[in-house]
Amino acid sequence: MPGGGAGVIVGIGDDTAVLQPGTLVLATCDVQVEGIHFTRDLCTPADVGWRALAVNVSDIAAMGGVPRYALVSLLIPASAGSAALEDLYGGMAELARLHGVAVVGGNVSATPGPLAVDITVLGEAEHAVLRRGAQPGDGVWITGCAGKAAAGRFLLEHRDVAVAARETLEMAYRRPVARVAAGRAFGNLARSGLVTAMIDTSDGTASDLLHLAEASGVGVRLDAAHLPVPAGLAEAARAAGVAVDAWMLGGGEDYELLFTAAKAFDARANEAAAAAGVGITRIGDVLPEREGRWVATAAGEQRPLRAAGWDHLAR
Amino acid sequence: MPGGGAGVIVGIGDDTAVLQPGTLVLATCDVQVEGIHFTRDLCTPADVGWRALAVNVSDIAAMGGVPRYALVSLLIPASAGSAALEDLYGGMAELARLHGVAVVGGNVSATPGPLAVDITVLGEAEHAVLRRGAQPGDGVWITGCAGKAAAGRFLLEHRDVAVAARETLEMAYRRPVARVAAGRAFGNLARSGLVTAMIDTSDGTASDLLHLAEASGVGVRLDAAHLPVPAGLAEAARAAGVAVDAWMLGGGEDYELLFTAAKAFDARANEAAAAAGVGITRIGDVLPEREGRWVATAAGEQRPLRAAGWDHLAR
Repeated sequence: MPGGGAGVIVGIGDDTAVLQPGTLVLATCDVQVEGIHFTRDLCTPADVGWRALAVNVSDIAAMGGVPRYALVSLLIPASAGSAALEDLYGGMAELARLHGVAVVGGNVSATPGPLAVDITVLGEAEHAVLRRGAQPGDGVWITGCAGKAAAGRFLLEHRDVAVAARETLEMAYRRPVARVAAGRAFGNLARSGLVTAMIDTSDGTASDLLHLAEASGVGVRLDAAHLPVPAGLAEAARAAGVAVDAWMLGGGEDYELLFTAAKAFDARANEAAAAAGVGITRIGDVLPEREGRWVATAAGEQRPLRAAGWDHLAR
Repeated sequence: MPGGGAGVIVGIGDDTAVLQPGTLVLATCDVQVEGIHFTRDLCTPADVGWRALAVNVSDIAAMGGVPRYALVSLLIPASAGSAALEDLYGGMAELARLHGVAVVGGNVSATPGPLAVDITVLGEAEHAVLRRGAQPGDGVWITGCAGKAAAGRFLLEHRDVAVAARETLEMAYRRPVARVAAGRAFGNLARSGLVTAMIDTSDGTASDLLHLAEASGVGVRLDAAHLPVPAGLAEAARAAGVAVDAWMLGGGEDYELLFTAAKAFDARANEAAAAAGVGITRIGDVLPEREGRWVATAAGEQRPLRAAGWDHLAR
């Protein structure tokens, strides 16, 4: 596992890691439990390691920070072989290298229960972009596209469905990549007040936009017709018998960044996308709180925005 | 739960906590799993919450640091009622208040397996006392006394055994208190080179002394006759049919500090104990590595020091 890195005075092996931090330290933890957040059918052990780290790195990205350090707790059932454990570490190490994250601590315990991977990631930032800060008149923006992880999971569950973009969609579910560069770019724009609030889409576009609106004390209108549709999503949704919207609004685990930005950002969106290294799309408007929280569906109806969130394996 | 505190810019509720750190950040994580590290028979839910935080705080103490922030992951089986969950948080909050620790992040997940509490604690230090640093000629010292948690656990398993100090011993197991003030005092002495290495006794006196000797590349001789005997330990050991030594050397979970100190420390031991707020005892000597690692038993034999460690619930 990558254990060194800038700022690591002492890594694994003493009572604690010793770190020399930057201005602000960001800290987040998230757990992945077999049977709740993943199954062995859908994810290889390496995928599990990758995902468990990625979901935490994404939280750092959503603050505009740089992920730096990880502490990893593993609960290992007797049924998990040592090869699987090595693969899990391998997947985690692959993602750690991608983002320059040093694994500085951890512990492994036996468990009579399912495999679980709990990770704390520490990051650094000069300026943290919070969920609160959105103002009426701001635009609502998203990086990349939403719904691809939900589609990928459906395809992993239905290996006989023919979809041209199958592999891309499957990988979106198995190996999500946190938008770290984009988070930093928007973090820089937040210092001048252009970007006003940010969150990552772990629960789903609708659900996470509601979190942001709630924290900011604002209303919001999301235009579902503006959501960019991932390649193959329509085909997969048709095979699944669900509406494309359902996955794009309610399917979580995409780990895109959802952010709000002042009107002046619109003119600089192309430049921001170039700095972010990913396409961005304006998908809605921030409203005064009294005007409520709405989604305009692709069919033209206006409906209350609901947390049609992702409840992991129970759909 | 205590969530505020110095240096907490943003606590629970955003994608990550935002913290303003001191000079060095210490980071450690440790998990407690039902059936592996505790059982419902021996510990109340409040005990579980207390212990899960205490074991991490103890790691910060063992570096000479000040515990500051905690991130808590809970895996909750359906069988755990909401009252138990509240009690668990209550016990954790009690210990957090005692040490001035702010809970700045966390998550709760369902699990088809056992209850598990995984905590990351972040601390601060001006100077970190590592396990490496012990030099031949140093003394080996311990705070408080060892074996009390093992005795306490035996008494919790055998409620009919009459021992006067029962409650104190039981509480040593159920509610260990990390030696934070002592850790800071020894940390200050480490800056001038008087204290040379430190570790907490989570695995057991023998096992943790071996960890320290290994990290320092030194030999060691531990004089078992010098280990202070906790009140009631001899009585409880007699009832259990085990040697007093076995618990004092091999029984873990005491969370005392085991440290090495230069010869010049001996003359200042009383002053150091006063600053530490706990009694300290010289229990051995650091040797050149080639002279080996030994324990002189109370009976006068010299035997190889073995990691007669604590393997949690499997004895």
